[in-house]
Amino acid sequence: MFFVLQMAISNIRYGEGVTKEVGMDLQNLGAKRVCLMTDRNLSQLPPVDAVLNSLTKSGINFQMYDNVRVEPTDQSFLDAIEFAKKGEFDAYVAVGGGSVIDTCKAANLYASSPTSDFLDYVNAPIGKGKAVTVPLKPLIAVPTTAGTGSETTGVAIFDFKELKVKTGIASRAIKPTLGIIDPLHTLSMPERIVANSGFDVLCHALESYTPLPYKMRSPCPSNPINRPAYQGSNPISDVWALHALRIVAKYLKRAIRNPEDREARANMHLASAFAGIGFGNAGVHLCHGMSYPISGLVKTYKPKDYNVDHSLVPHGLSVVLTSPAVFAFTAQVHPERHLEAAEILGADIRTARIKDAGLILADTLRKFLFDLNVDDGLAAIGYSKADIPALVKGTLPQERVTKLSPRPQTEEDLSALFEASMKLY
Amino acid sequence: MFFVLQMAISNIRYGEGVTKEVGMDLQNLGAKRVCLMTDRNLSQLPPVDAVLNSLTKSGINFQMYDNVRVEPTDQSFLDAIEFAKKGEFDAYVAVGGGSVIDTCKAANLYASSPTSDFLDYVNAPIGKGKAVTVPLKPLIAVPTTAGTGSETTGVAIFDFKELKVKTGIASRAIKPTLGIIDPLHTLSMPERIVANSGFDVLCHALESYTPLPYKMRSPCPSNPINRPAYQGSNPISDVWALHALRIVAKYLKRAIRNPEDREARANMHLASAFAGIGFGNAGVHLCHGMSYPISGLVKTYKPKDYNVDHSLVPHGLSVVLTSPAVFAFTAQVHPERHLEAAEILGADIRTARIKDAGLILADTLRKFLFDLNVDDGLAAIGYSKADIPALVKGTLPQERVTKLSPRPQTEEDLSALFEASMKLY
Ligand SMILES: NC(=O)c1ccc[n+]([C@@H]2O[C@H](COP(=O)([O-])OP(=O)(O)OC[C@H]3O[C@@H](n4cnc5c(N)ncnc54)[C@H](O)[C@@H]3O)[C@@H](O)[C@H]2O)c1
Ligand SMILES: NC(=O)c1ccc[n+]([C@@H]2O[C@H](COP(=O)([O-])OP(=O)(O)OC[C@H]3O[C@@H](n4cnc5c(N)ncnc54)[C@H](O)[C@@H]3O)[C@@H](O)[C@H]2O)c1
Ligand SMILES: [Fe+2]
Ligand SMILES: [Fe+2]
Repeated sequence: MFFVLQMAISNIRYGEGVTKEVGMDLQNLGAKRVCLMTDRNLSQLPPVDAVLNSLTKSGINFQMYDNVRVEPTDQSFLDAIEFAKKGEFDAYVAVGGGSVIDTCKAANLYASSPTSDFLDYVNAPIGKGKAVTVPLKPLIAVPTTAGTGSETTGVAIFDFKELKVKTGIASRAIKPTLGIIDPLHTLSMPERIVANSGFDVLCHALESYTPLPYKMRSPCPSNPINRPAYQGSNPISDVWALHALRIVAKYLKRAIRNPEDREARANMHLASAFAGIGFGNAGVHLCHGMSYPISGLVKTYKPKDYNVDHSLVPHGLSVVLTSPAVFAFTAQVHPERHLEAAEILGADIRTARIKDAGLILADTLRKFLFDLNVDDGLAAIGYSKADIPALVKGTLPQERVTKLSPRPQTEEDLSALFEASMKLY
Repeated sequence: MFFVLQMAISNIRYGEGVTKEVGMDLQNLGAKRVCLMTDRNLSQLPPVDAVLNSLTKSGINFQMYDNVRVEPTDQSFLDAIEFAKKGEFDAYVAVGGGSVIDTCKAANLYASSPTSDFLDYVNAPIGKGKAVTVPLKPLIAVPTTAGTGSETTGVAIFDFKELKVKTGIASRAIKPTLGIIDPLHTLSMPERIVANSGFDVLCHALESYTPLPYKMRSPCPSNPINRPAYQGSNPISDVWALHALRIVAKYLKRAIRNPEDREARANMHLASAFAGIGFGNAGVHLCHGMSYPISGLVKTYKPKDYNVDHSLVPHGLSVVLTSPAVFAFTAQVHPERHLEAAEILGADIRTARIKDAGLILADTLRKFLFDLNVDDGLAAIGYSKADIPALVKGTLPQERVTKLSPRPQTEEDLSALFEASMKLY
């Protein structure tokens, strides 16, 4: 058997105030027409200000697109792509959370491949999952949440309205050229955005530490260009996953509680990139696979602190609500990893039995979420038992991630996981 | 004050037999004229065979250059550059240890910048240390030692004959496009090559865990393009350094003792890349700075197991021989890191006093080297007290690394460090 592990790790720059360099970076790239992307809310906030200042100071010619949708859809991606095609840009700067960075990746991709059909690059089986062979323009990502790690990954996620399900585009080719991690940007985040994006980091770390090991993943494409970015757990992503998890355990609560705690917010900002490097190469599994219909089927839920005009389930919330059920389910495969994660998150495992690893991790997560005032399960965000078949149906096409679960799942298993996630406490 | 940390991390692929993909990679890159570089010894060994097979199978048009000098010099770099210029290649494959990979980086750089003077890109103060702005061709590095991590770094080292001192070229631009880490290649390494290249990993890990922290390094260039690759210790390289050190502690002895111990050799092969990512961003300091004259001034030393016709001090040996003295000297700055390193390498530190950290790490290293039959200090490889002034003189221009030492050094300090390294046991 032939095992391969391919790591595309990232270029990142970290430092308070480091955003002021983005204009120089664009000059160094020789950029003549730059597309600056953000969302409407951020366009009024300090992170975008800092970028605008830097661009102006360096005399960069740019156009701003601030129409990014929070939790993007195919429609909102297409709108940004249209803008990018018209603009004929030679570089992109994305300032925002995962919604902005992902939208910018898609805009860059399709503007660089103008004759492609939108579905060409969308993950199979929903789209065609074609390999990207066209050269893209440089994209500098300036994350403003401490969550997705999108500045380090080759993934762009959107909500496919027609199917009411989230899916994405995954290719090393869309990974940003440079991520500028400036922890000052995290200071303007309101409490629930810190919490929800932090839960995303938590799940990236937990899921990328526990997927199918890379030596067990199949198929193994014979041409490296067809190899997926998500390869299963491996000795390199393990390092990042554990490291990120330790930071989450130490700093997430502090970052949520106190907006002035710069140390905590800066550490979570780095952790989000670290977890991104980990899951961007190892993948995520059930929490993410099941989250896509949870977000996609949203009814009327409007989260606190989100300055948007549509209902949405924030991504981090949609992944974390199933996490106790998911890890109770998967622990039979790598119980020692589940127990280790529980210990890092504060569980006392001195007298723990290895066969209880899943329950211990689940309890630890429940307690963690309770302490952080997280909604009490899927019921609290508007779902009931009657929705479970639709939630399961929306999970089935998420093979790209669900197949990375260490434990295979039937539809009944998925039903049971959603049901167990209706109420947490 | 404005602190920046810039990480250029790497693309690597890892797996037994993964070399067979290199032909496909070159096809995917659209390469039409490929330069295959190696050294004379390796050209007869399985790693080069595997690459040749893959190139042939994929119908890749290539020319082979096997004239790389083990421990390259300016002359040998120039010879390879000449070959590269004539060949007008559109991609490079380097199969070998640091000597081959470094030579190939230089060949690619100067062939891509044909009007440059050789000194233009050589590190200041010896050369001009100009920033690389020309685009280079893709370079795929296939390491065959478990040592330099050159497949992950933007550094190419050579012996400047005129000055009798090693120096190099350092730029993110010369970092290989892809490192193919195929642990099968390590199986042909004779014992001393495993040992010496392993010591290089050990010192990369130790030195990159203990340099000046990145927030204390100066100057801080205002344009990011002028920022050095070596930035001092930082929260990202720390992760790599410690991880590599743990692997060295666990596997180096086994890898040396038993050529059949595939687990140990494979782990050291990965550790060398991990340490490369760490030191490639944090830098190294005194062991490396002092090693350059130790190699450059070599008299008649001919190491066991090296199939070459000139005398040389293998790089890994030249760095490790001063390590006990160096860490005893630097420990006063970050004693807790020195103690932590000693513990990872097997010291019992339960009753240790923090002020003894340097001595404890030095003793641990001495014991480690003694167990591995390493020559007893600089005296055993042909140096005497009378050589110390020349060794010191050769260290002074190595500012790029010596300035990263956590503790500043006078010429007297350097003399004392060389003197303390004459005899180890
Ligand atoms: N590409 C990837 O690797 C990846 C990984 C995980 C999730 N995602 C996707 O990313 C999206 C979620 O991204 P997110 O969690 O970063 O949030 P987001 O981008 O959706 O932003 C959420 C809200 O926070 C606001 N906001 C962002 N930064 C702020 C700041 N500094 N101060 C004040 N307000 C701020 C935004 O304006 C928005 O209203 C989802 O679509 C998800 O599926 C992508
Ligand atoms: N670029 C960097 O980041 C970096 C870092 C550290 C050192 N270096 C430089 O790298 C050079 C040392 O490289 P190295 O330690 O990898 O050794 P090397 O390339 O000098 O090779 C040493 C010997 O080992 C032989 N060899 C290599 N692989 C073999 C295999 N698999 N089987 C049998 N024989 C094999 C070679 O033919 C050669 O004779 C020095 O010039 C050093 O300064 C570079
Ligand atoms: Fe996520
Ligand atoms: Fe080295």
